[in-house]
Amino acid sequence: MNKVYLPPSRIGVIGGGQLGRMLAFEAKRMGYEVFVLDPKENSPAGQVSDFQFVASFDDFEALLSLAQKTDIITYEFEHINVEHLLRLKEMGYKIYPSPETLKIIQNKYLQREYLKRLGLPVPKFKRVESFEDLIIKAGQFSFPLMLKHARGGYDGKGNILIKGQKDLEEFKNFDFKREIFIEEYINFKKEISIILCRNLDGDLKFYLPFENYHEDSILKITKCPADIKEDVKKEAINIAKAVLEGFDDVGVFCIEMFLDYDDRIYINEIAPRVHNSGHLTIEAFVSSQFENHLRSIANLPLGSTELLKRAAMINILGDRKLTGKYTIEGFKDLLKMDGIYVHLYGKDFVDNKKKIGHVTVIGETDEEINEKIEFVKNNLKIGEFNG
Amino acid sequence: MNKVYLPPSRIGVIGGGQLGRMLAFEAKRMGYEVFVLDPKENSPAGQVSDFQFVASFDDFEALLSLAQKTDIITYEFEHINVEHLLRLKEMGYKIYPSPETLKIIQNKYLQREYLKRLGLPVPKFKRVESFEDLIIKAGQFSFPLMLKHARGGYDGKGNILIKGQKDLEEFKNFDFKREIFIEEYINFKKEISIILCRNLDGDLKFYLPFENYHEDSILKITKCPADIKEDVKKEAINIAKAVLEGFDDVGVFCIEMFLDYDDRIYINEIAPRVHNSGHLTIEAFVSSQFENHLRSIANLPLGSTELLKRAAMINILGDRKLTGKYTIEGFKDLLKMDGIYVHLYGKDFVDNKKKIGHVTVIGETDEEINEKIEFVKNNLKIGEFNG
Repeated sequence: MNKVYLPPSRIGVIGGGQLGRMLAFEAKRMGYEVFVLDPKENSPAGQVSDFQFVASFDDFEALLSLAQKTDIITYEFEHINVEHLLRLKEMGYKIYPSPETLKIIQNKYLQREYLKRLGLPVPKFKRVESFEDLIIKAGQFSFPLMLKHARGGYDGKGNILIKGQKDLEEFKNFDFKREIFIEEYINFKKEISIILCRNLDGDLKFYLPFENYHEDSILKITKCPADIKEDVKKEAINIAKAVLEGFDDVGVFCIEMFLDYDDRIYINEIAPRVHNSGHLTIEAFVSSQFENHLRSIANLPLGSTELLKRAAMINILGDRKLTGKYTIEGFKDLLKMDGIYVHLYGKDFVDNKKKIGHVTVIGETDEEINEKIEFVKNNLKIGEFNG
Repeated sequence: MNKVYLPPSRIGVIGGGQLGRMLAFEAKRMGYEVFVLDPKENSPAGQVSDFQFVASFDDFEALLSLAQKTDIITYEFEHINVEHLLRLKEMGYKIYPSPETLKIIQNKYLQREYLKRLGLPVPKFKRVESFEDLIIKAGQFSFPLMLKHARGGYDGKGNILIKGQKDLEEFKNFDFKREIFIEEYINFKKEISIILCRNLDGDLKFYLPFENYHEDSILKITKCPADIKEDVKKEAINIAKAVLEGFDDVGVFCIEMFLDYDDRIYINEIAPRVHNSGHLTIEAFVSSQFENHLRSIANLPLGSTELLKRAAMINILGDRKLTGKYTIEGFKDLLKMDGIYVHLYGKDFVDNKKKIGHVTVIGETDEEINEKIEFVKNNLKIGEFNG
């Protein structure tokens, strides 16, 4: 029998951003205590948690304190020193998803290798160790192709599109020690994501595929359910399940996939955590990804992933440098329409392209959802806050 | 044009209990800052708010600090020193609902008088100033009748049932200086409540009537929608609207009503705040009572009160003295059923009959809801927490 963590057990969350914040809302609602670790004081998650350790994610002593003070540790982003987590796990602390899984996922090249070994569909890819190597390997692909950093990228950072032979010349003085690989460019018609969860007892549940729209490589809109054929949906779900079962791990995972014009599926990226494309599960599904992540890591029965209403999520991104407090100028107009939920993350300044909130809309038909998306886009405007 | 308070405006909440906690969840979600005042450190609401003043509700200086540090003040319970609030209002601070309304509602006798003057249906009642007066006035009623304290009672405290003439003798040495009145006893077949909200611009929205079941005068179960005839429903809604329009006030109000066996409606009590019977609005309606209270006091357009799913709420009450931490022993079994939401308030000990949490269930049919209520009742058991 695997241990069940009942409230008021204490959940430790590495990372104090919006994902941690929404996780904290659900954890507190269910009666758990929440301790957060983030270098930024009064972080979005810290504001609504019982305690925040203000420390760097690289600070082993701080991570150890978090572990000592809590019953289970989880995280809301991937860029954590995984060696520290492995050490904590060796010391007997509970960390979900496992550091071993995180270690694979953190490195996009290892992640691709891993998925390939499982027989799952990924774009064709090859490690590149030098400029000469790049020229040779690129010759085995057709243009355009992607050059990717194995580590450290998110929101498309670290990915470079190579359109043709002459783009390659630009990499003559490139630092190939940084773990680089090239990859077939997938001309996709859709990007979908599947969020699923698994608890220690091995129960697994998944949400219907979501459809994602990016702008400048940052997620802008998610719609649910995705408009894809029934057999593609089934295949995508089977792939997502195979990923999570492959890891034999615990928690919420998000599997992002490309769908090309022949309806072929390619896994794009895996996130071993609650995900931006799953925000709409708060309003649109019986149990949210945040509740199900908690249920997974506490080894409780998983909550229903039944759809209640069609929904879409629109990210609110900072569009200029603003120091000091800001507000949503169109807030009042926005709330004139029914079935609109504004989430602001309590961040105290707006950076360019930083996610500062999101809006979820619910509705009956795809048409209604599209109208509401337009309404939100037309009314959202970030302005200065004048008390 | 009335001022609109956009996030991150700061909401001050007097009272740090579960109602304040759920209000804070919604306020933080929408990007507001929340400051709470409660005498108990680390109160349920304080745990999830930006700041808690630890002070007595009678402490004017503390209330003043709360007012100075926040943009709008609201409260989650009625037993506040209303003279202090009136003084703060005179000083220019914004307090919703208004202290004038609270002053009337705090005093159950004044509340009855007020409603009677508005022509609204209340049980027959009479002020009683001495034992002799009691004997005379009781003669104008039929037994059984209720003897009530005008001030300080909640959850039925301060209400005494007088079954017959000889019960009156017990009041020979009673302190009638405490503002007493007697009241016709309503032999009700149902208790219903209507939650409505109104913003500064005068927009008003109401939720469908809920049906409430008490045990030992404490709310145990709320079901929605109430099983009442269509014309009774309409009349109840009209009465509730008349109450709120009568006060010409701002915020969420709960109007509790009795329905006798002839389907006559009597107003039982008014709460100028979010209410226990409205907890299920979180899961069962498009916008919750908590969001709508915030929208009301911030003078934003009100959220939809459309029902999403049938629902019921079951209060979790402490059933014995336990010091230290406790947990819900049946928690794991409880979560095996779909559409069950456990809310625990983060209170750190169980007092007899104290509300420590609630469970909301959603479903398609009344039968399904009743099954889930039974399931919850059979599985909920409070036990010691052993980490």
